[in-house]
Formats: sequence, structure tokens, C-alpha cells
Amino acid sequence: MSNADIFIGEIIGTAILVLFGAGVCAAVTLRHSKARASGWVVIAFGWGFGVLAGAYTAAPLSSGQLNPAVTIGIAVDTGTWDKVWVYLLGQMVGAMLGAVLAYLVYLAQFQANVRKEDSAEEPTPTLGVFSTIPEIRNPVANLITEIIATIALVLPILAFGLTEGLGESGTTVLIVSLLVVGIGLSLGGPTGYAINPARDLGPRIVHAFLPIPNKGTSDWGYAWVPVVGPLIGGALAGLIYHAAF
Amino acid sequence: MSNADIFIGEIIGTAILVLFGAGVCAAVTLRHSKARASGWVVIAFGWGFGVLAGAYTAAPLSSGQLNPAVTIGIAVDTGTWDKVWVYLLGQMVGAMLGAVLAYLVYLAQFQANVRKEDSAEEPTPTLGVFSTIPEIRNPVANLITEIIATIALVLPILAFGLTEGLGESGTTVLIVSLLVVGIGLSLGGPTGYAINPARDLGPRIVHAFLPIPNKGTSDWGYAWVPVVGPLIGGALAGLIYHAAF
Amino acid sequence: MSNADIFIGEIIGTAILVLFGAGVCAAVTLRHSKARASGWVVIAFGWGFGVLAGAYTAAPLSSGQLNPAVTIGIAVDTGTWDKVWVYLLGQMVGAMLGAVLAYLVYLAQFQANVRKEDSAEEPTPTLGVFSTIPEIRNPVANLITEIIATIALVLPILAFGLTEGLGESGTTVLIVSLLVVGIGLSLGGPTGYAINPARDLGPRIVHAFLPIPNKGTSDWGYAWVPVVGPLIGGALAGLIYHAAF
Amino acid sequence: MSNADIFIGEIIGTAILVLFGAGVCAAVTLRHSKARASGWVVIAFGWGFGVLAGAYTAAPLSSGQLNPAVTIGIAVDTGTWDKVWVYLLGQMVGAMLGAVLAYLVYLAQFQANVRKEDSAEEPTPTLGVFSTIPEIRNPVANLITEIIATIALVLPILAFGLTEGLGESGTTVLIVSLLVVGIGLSLGGPTGYAINPARDLGPRIVHAFLPIPNKGTSDWGYAWVPVVGPLIGGALAGLIYHAAF
Repeated sequence: MSNADIFIGEIIGTAILVLFGAGVCAAVTLRHSKARASGWVVIAFGWGFGVLAGAYTAAPLSSGQLNPAVTIGIAVDTGTWDKVWVYLLGQMVGAMLGAVLAYLVYLAQFQANVRKEDSAEEPTPTLGVFSTIPEIRNPVANLITEIIATIALVLPILAFGLTEGLGESGTTVLIVSLLVVGIGLSLGGPTGYAINPARDLGPRIVHAFLPIPNKGTSDWGYAWVPVVGPLIGGALAGLIYHAAF
Repeated sequence: MSNADIFIGEIIGTAILVLFGAGVCAAVTLRHSKARASGWVVIAFGWGFGVLAGAYTAAPLSSGQLNPAVTIGIAVDTGTWDKVWVYLLGQMVGAMLGAVLAYLVYLAQFQANVRKEDSAEEPTPTLGVFSTIPEIRNPVANLITEIIATIALVLPILAFGLTEGLGESGTTVLIVSLLVVGIGLSLGGPTGYAINPARDLGPRIVHAFLPIPNKGTSDWGYAWVPVVGPLIGGALAGLIYHAAF
Repeated sequence: MSNADIFIGEIIGTAILVLFGAGVCAAVTLRHSKARASGWVVIAFGWGFGVLAGAYTAAPLSSGQLNPAVTIGIAVDTGTWDKVWVYLLGQMVGAMLGAVLAYLVYLAQFQANVRKEDSAEEPTPTLGVFSTIPEIRNPVANLITEIIATIALVLPILAFGLTEGLGESGTTVLIVSLLVVGIGLSLGGPTGYAINPARDLGPRIVHAFLPIPNKGTSDWGYAWVPVVGPLIGGALAGLIYHAAF
Repeated sequence: MSNADIFIGEIIGTAILVLFGAGVCAAVTLRHSKARASGWVVIAFGWGFGVLAGAYTAAPLSSGQLNPAVTIGIAVDTGTWDKVWVYLLGQMVGAMLGAVLAYLVYLAQFQANVRKEDSAEEPTPTLGVFSTIPEIRNPVANLITEIIATIALVLPILAFGLTEGLGESGTTVLIVSLLVVGIGLSLGGPTGYAINPARDLGPRIVHAFLPIPNKGTSDWGYAWVPVVGPLIGGALAGLIYHAAF
């Protein structure tokens, strides 16, 4: 795969992933959405099928990693680091692009965040559409959550390659997407499961710049946790895989 | 594939798709339905598994496109337009047939839409069973939503063909159906995700003619958005795919 | 396949199907169940994954039809009727066995249907665990619902055999199970989607004999609809398939 | 497979399974979780996709049994008992490790179980995150539930090996994980479906030792049911399979 293919593939794939992921957070949390308050199961399947859509689309170009934690995990396992920067750059650009697209899909909803006259409701803080917010703010606990949840993502992904037939039947990405659904359902409760630095940091940057009425804080004080935690988790998964398999 | 096979395949497949899709909207919104008020996750999986049912059934005859936006996207990518009219005609006939079938499945429920004496509830507007209605009526924003959501449908579908093994294992349609679930969960909030002109226009025509008590408006003022938006989105997806892959 | 293998396979497979299906109805409707009131999505996935469990288990012995409507549909299409009676007999015995097993799984819950002293709730009618009950009692409409819903089951099943690779990858039953989830979500609202005469009649017989406190009526007046409707639907699906494919 | 590979594989796989499973119980039941009160469908899919994650990861090392009931069922069917102790030991160690990991993921939530000043809610009993608790305490009925539910797990798993193509396409574990979702939805209502002695006993031991505030009882009086029931169920499934297939 050429650097250009990797770059374009990761941009398109990560953009689709974040379009679905930020989209489902908008769908469940914004007023005037048909999916308003439809619950955690919707969040988890929305993100999971975002992986399905993004990774299958990117796969022919870049193998569809879409996540710096996955890229780091593979690099730690294989010892090959020379393309890592291309992946990471594409992932960050794609995540920002996806956040903008999700904003455009929910444009009327975001604009309606000022119209209070027909409702007793306050404007909704909007950062949760873009980036993760912990339920209990405790950097050490939040970091542990993100590290373990990311190991639970990257270690299985590395091991899937060893299951005979999965690659040949083309269903590996399907399995990864259901794995992501599972992580969301099971391990997303405390921090909202970033488990992907690009997925959290890219949209947070976009949130800081978008002209959303009453958008609230971009919460830069927390921004390092969903970056550092997944990177540590991805690297640890690579080490565990390298040692155990 | 002969024109007759394509025509019959698209009719049967799109009829099944819309039977499931209009069916699930009836299931969730009509009084006297066991699935009443069962939420957005039911809507999204109902439509997605309608794609599964319809596209697997149509596949041997017509390859199961079931959607003018998909047909246009493929034509834009390949430059082959000569069978497009057969697909579109079959899709429109099928969508109307499917809407009639869904009406028949929920016949008693539709008829009960007049019986107010045993309930304080008003008759339910019924258009939402057949066609999409935006949460916030804003043609530009609604159009943007439909365009992006349709790109998120057609671009991955085009790319799925490049994943080795997916076709050979027969699971491509399964992946497409889960993609449609994901689009519903994530991008359906603002407009109810037509992402398919036939799926919206065919049932709207049927709604205008069916003898449903208190059926309410067929909302022809909005009807162009879920036709034009998906057609633009499908064409753009074809262009992006042609350029990037 | 020998008659003995078919008979045993259909008994085991249909027993598992009805164990899951009656089980999930018990789970959602009985007091003192952890899944109480968990909604229609649980019902639909419970029945669908009952098909997955039962049909994959029966497949090596009997090809796992588990449903007289499917058996009739195949016979109408192929013109081969000589084994039909073995399938139907196994399916009826299996459905009754499955209903007894579901009763045993929820034994304490059924027994607790008398203990009213700790609750203001009335005993729950229990037929809904075993057999279908229409929301609106209208034999013609109910029959139409069951006929169309069964066509939507049997026609795709017949067509799945034409999709290259599905059989070879062993995933056909998975697709059928998701199809059944979809039918439940979309077409189950009016009658509770019997779409299988054995699944409805077998458990109804068991319900009539089981010593459940306050079990309520077995509703024999309605019992013919979920038998006749699916049989007509299965036969029509066989005819449509034979003509169109 | 060497004893070391089996041991390591079962530890890693069962740890991931219980991490997801205990994790989803924490997600749904603990205060300050984003998935709080999100319902039974979340529980069932969380455990099912825990099987997907754990079994695919362990498969290359140990074939990913992760459950003494499955190991016993295979041994009863094949008559080969010499590696059974390695599997069981790995499963117990893995289940305890997974419970500790789930505790760490939800560390802040568990610690917040003392902070009552900002809430009228009592501290939540925490055993339900780790081990099963019956809705109605009735050892005979609870044992029957666990036996039948475990047969419904192990008999299909044994039969899946007979479906041509499932192994070759690498999708067997996917089917098993959906089977586990189905068991949860359908048969989990009375006892919370242990169906796996290691999954219940390992985390119960961990619960007894962890320094969780207000953690409540570890309920050792019930602990034998979710051990003995699944072992009987697994052995019966092995016998039925051996006789019928």
C-alpha cells in the first residue's frame, strides 16, 4: 500500500467512523431528533456499525485501522514503525472531517439549540456529541478505564488474524464491529469509551471551532486522558500479544 | 441478467424492503400494536433487516439494488446507464407494492384509527408509516442530511465489492443490512433517513390513495427532498469512489 | 437423510426454537423475571436467536426446517411430498417438548403466579408465553397478517439457496435467524407473528394441560388462524418462488 | 495444543469474557454509569459479545472453551478427559482475573458507592455485578433453570461443528456469541443465566475479597447452584449429542 492510499483510506474510513459515532451521540442527546433518549444500546450499536462502515470502506486502501491505538498496537507487535505517521495523520484528518459531517447532518438540530421560547428545556451542552466526558471526573480511574478498554479492543483485533478462515470469508471487520459494540455496552459506562485518540481529539478540536450556539466548554482539561489512555492500552495490547501468542 | 429478471427482482426485493420498513414504522407508531412505542432501535433494525430480506431475495435475479441512489451511484462509477431505467421502474413499482402489503398487514390497526370512543387518544397521523417527515422543517438542512446519509450508504456499498472474500462467502448483503441499521441509528435523527427515493416516493403515492381513516396529509410539499437528496448523494458517492479507489 | 434422522432432528431443533421463543415471552411478561418489561426488541431477538440455536442444531440431521410453513413451501416448489409427514410430526412433537422445557425454566415464576399477597398485581394471563394472541381480534385481518408475514419468511428462505457462497460459508441459518428478527420487529405488531403452525399449536396444547395456577384461557377459538394462515402463506411462497425464480 | 497454550489461552479468553460480562452488569446497575438502567437487551448483548471477544482471542491457543460446562460436555461426548483439568484451571484463573479487571474499569463507580450525601439512593448491593442472584430463591427450580439453559448452550455448540463451512469461514465463534445472546434474552429471567461455573464462582471469590464499600453479601449459600447446575447441563448435553448425532 502506498502512502497516498493509506492516507486517503484512513481519512475516508475514520471520517465515516466519526460521522456515525458523533451522529449517534447527536441522535440520542439532541432535542428535535427522532432518536432522542433512545438509550445506550443505540449508542453502542451506532459506534460499532460506524466501525463496520468505515473499516470496510477503508480496507482496500489502508487496511482500515482508523485508530492510533490499533496502529500503535500493530507497530509494537511487529516492530515496524515507518508508516505509523501516515496512519496517524490520516486518522486525525479523517476524525475532524467526520465531526464536521456529523455537524452538518444535525445542522438544524444544532441551530435549534438556541430556540428556547417553545420549550422549558435549557440548551443542551454539545461536547458529548463530539468527545467523551467521564461520569465521575477522576483522572487515575478514568485512565485505567481507557487503558483496559483499549486492551480489550486491540488484543482481540490482533488475535483475530490468527483465526483461520475469518480473513478469507471477508468477515473480520464484521467481528471487529461487534467487538466494538460489546466494548461500548460493557466498558463504556465510566468514561464513554474513547479507546481511540483520534476519535476523541479530532472532534474536540472541531467542537472548539464550530459556530454552535450555546455549545458549552470543549473541556481541554480532560482531553489528555482519552489520548494517553488508549495509546498506553494499544501498546500494552501489542506487548501482551507478542508475548502470549 | 435480462431486463425481465431485473424488473421482477427489483419489484420483489423492494416490495419486501418496504413491507418490513413501513411495517416497523406501523409497529412502533400505531395504537393496538404489540411493538407500540418500542423505540428507535426497533425502527433501525426493522429497516436494516428489511434490506437483508429484500436484497438476498432479489440478488439472484437483479443483484438486489432496491434503491435508485445505489443504482445511480453504480452508473456514475461505471459509466453504464442502459439498464438504469429498468432498475428504477422496478424499484418504484416494488416500493408501492410493499406499502400496500404493509397496509394489509396492519389493516385492523389502520381501521381502528377511527375508534376513539374507548380512548382519550386522538387518531394518529399515518404518513410516518409510509414516508419520512423531518423533525425540523428546513429544506436546506434536510437536503444536506439526506445527501450525507446517502453518501454514507452508497460509498461503503461500492467499496464492499473490493473486500476479498465477502462476495465469495455470500455475506455482502448481511454487511449492507447492518450498514443500514447503523445509518438509521446514527444519521436518522433529523429526517428519518429516506436515503432511497423509491422507498419514500412510492409509499407516499400509495398513502395518498389508500382509504385510511383520519390518515392526515401526504405532505407533498416535502416530497422532493427525500427524492433529490438521495439522488445527489448517490451520484456524489459514485464520483468519490471513482476518484479515490 | 433417513426418516429417523429427520424426525429426531426436527424434534430437537423445534424444541430448542420453542424453548427460546416461549422462554423470551416468559422473560418479558412474567413477574419476578429479570427481563420483565424489557420490550419488543427482546422478544424479536429472542425468537430470532431461537431459530439460530434450533436450526443450526438440527441442520446436520434434518436440514432444520422447524416450521410446517417452510416444509410446505419447499414441497410446493419442488413437488416432493413424501417426507412432509415426518417433518410435520417431528415439528409438532418438538414444539410441545420445547413448551414444556420453557415451563420448567420458568417454573418458580409460574408457581408465583398465585402469590398475590405481596403485590397489588393481578395474576398474569399465561397463554401469551405459549401461543399468539391478536391485539385486535379480527379473523380476516389476522389471517391476512399471518399469510403475508409467512410469505415474507418462506420466500426469502427459498431464495437464500440461490445466493452463491452462503451455503458454503455455513452462514445461511444466521441469515434466516436475522430474517426472523426482522419479521418480528416489523410484522409482529398485529398478531404476535406465529408464522409457524407448530410453534403456535404445539405450545397451545401444552398450555391446556400444564398445571399453571391462574393460567387463564387457552383461547381455542383463535387457534385455527395461526395454523391456517402460515400454511397458506408457505404454500403461496412456494408458488411465487416457483414462478419467479 | 500444549498444556501451556491451553492454560494461557483459557486465562486470557475467560478474563476477557468476564471483563465484558461483569462490565455490562456494572454498566447497567451501578450509579454514575452512562449505561445505567439501559435494560436487559444491553446485559444480553454485553455477555454475548464478551464470548465473541474472549473466544476469538483464545481460539488460536486453546480453541476458546472458556466454560467448564462446555469442557465437560466435550469430554463426555469424546471420552477424552486428560486435558480437562488444564482447561478448568485456566478458566477459574481467567474468571477471577476478569472480575478484577471489571472492578478496575468501574473503580470510581465502586468507590462512589459510599457517597450518599448527594443522593437519596441507598448504596447498591454489588454482588450482581460479579455473580448471579436468582429472582425467586428456590434451589430445585433454580437448578432446573441452569441445567436446561446450559443444555441449550452446549448441545448447539457441539452440533455447530457438524455444519459444513462454519469452521472454514471462521464464523463459528460469532454464531456461539449470538447463541449466548439468545440464552440471555430467553432463559436468563429466573436466575441470571450463569450457565458457566467459572463465570459465577471465580468472580464470587473475587467479590468476597475486594475492598468495595458497602458491597453486601457474597451469598455463599446460593453459590453451589450455578456451579452444579451448569456441570450437570454440560454433561447431559454431551450425552444427548453422543446419542442423537
